[in-house]
Amino acid sequence: MLTKNEIKFINSLKKKKSRDLNDCFVVEGKKSISEFINSKYDIVKLYSINKFFFKNIKNHFQIDYELLKKISSLINPDDHLAIFKKREIKSIDYNSLIIALESIRDPGNLGTIIRTCEWFGVKQIVCSKDSVDLYNPKVIQASMGSFSRININYLDLKPFLQASNLEIFGTALKGESIYGLKSKINSGVLIFGNEANGISSELLEIIDKKITIPRSKNQQFPESLNLASSLAIFLSEIKGKFS
Amino acid sequence: MLTKNEIKFINSLKKKKSRDLNDCFVVEGKKSISEFINSKYDIVKLYSINKFFFKNIKNHFQIDYELLKKISSLINPDDHLAIFKKREIKSIDYNSLIIALESIRDPGNLGTIIRTCEWFGVKQIVCSKDSVDLYNPKVIQASMGSFSRININYLDLKPFLQASNLEIFGTALKGESIYGLKSKINSGVLIFGNEANGISSELLEIIDKKITIPRSKNQQFPESLNLASSLAIFLSEIKGKFS
Repeated sequence: MLTKNEIKFINSLKKKKSRDLNDCFVVEGKKSISEFINSKYDIVKLYSINKFFFKNIKNHFQIDYELLKKISSLINPDDHLAIFKKREIKSIDYNSLIIALESIRDPGNLGTIIRTCEWFGVKQIVCSKDSVDLYNPKVIQASMGSFSRININYLDLKPFLQASNLEIFGTALKGESIYGLKSKINSGVLIFGNEANGISSELLEIIDKKITIPRSKNQQFPESLNLASSLAIFLSEIKGKFS
Repeated sequence: MLTKNEIKFINSLKKKKSRDLNDCFVVEGKKSISEFINSKYDIVKLYSINKFFFKNIKNHFQIDYELLKKISSLINPDDHLAIFKKREIKSIDYNSLIIALESIRDPGNLGTIIRTCEWFGVKQIVCSKDSVDLYNPKVIQASMGSFSRININYLDLKPFLQASNLEIFGTALKGESIYGLKSKINSGVLIFGNEANGISSELLEIIDKKITIPRSKNQQFPESLNLASSLAIFLSEIKGKFS
């Protein structure tokens, strides 16, 4: 059984304020929880419908499905819910391609982007400070465990980019066609803008090269691609096909 | 003002049963509503915070934001909410590439897929009958208007594929690399499986060629890509780069 206060505490972790205050976050589902454990995240508490799957976990509690529903963010909760301790974020790795996300809003997009980055071997993401919180349950859900293996830093993008001395690529609706690029992009920063507005004029100024995914000829619509889908195409073109 | 029954009716349209029964569906936001109007969908009712944007619409009602919140599916409602009449679905166009979706579950994925298909000039999607409903508000939201211009049919995939005489391509975790394909795929059917399980063994049997997006070397994770991201990469490779 869980006390009312415990239920309230777990639900409070759906909000960034409480995650920051308590320095922990929620992960749901056998697979994702396993990947955080494998990545050596410290588990604070684990709640399971069936305790047999996870062994030798301190603070492991058996609960019933009705109770799980009360603490889960999912419509169909997935048997296990864990609270993990946040971890200190590593310093930025400048030696390989960095993905920069400006003012990304949709947690599903960020989670999907993390998953796609890992698929194509990109290990470093930087987000502007006004981006959606990394520990949002929907980010973790959509990242399918990749979250636990990718380094993500929040910072002021403009000074970071200006100080970095890296080549800066920007994805935009007008720019050089991605299909015309001759070589793999192994280093530098590739910036993606906000879902509705793209890259801000402030950042557009400091971009060395704008790249675009051309829409099919004869098509006037849609105005743009989904952000995570667009990133998938970019990484496929600049990483995937060369690996 | 709206009566309690009207509010109840509009909210009932979040469920497939009521959409089927009443033969109508909800679209939210200025941009999406405009695109359905431009695509000659019949509008049943339109509710606006500010009536000036849409002109000459019968059954157009001014409401306040508090009321809009009561009928909207969005956390931050977007000024306008319309009810449209469903339209008879056109028969399948066999002359260009058809995207087949088996047991797709996530409405956000389906909406994003519709948007990406239009971007790359694919106009025909077929879904297995157990797939998420096309008129789900999240499908419409994520499709960003492309919904109104793409033909989507629900059917039993296996008999359809067997009777079609088309070349059948399947996306799978093991198959020929997408980067090795020599030519554009202009016709035939490209099948994508369910988010969690991929293509069923029943359909795998009748596929002529399996294609895969290889994961970066040295990467063991994630297990798969997001469905909509995977489709984006496929269409980019087989359509985008040839157009």
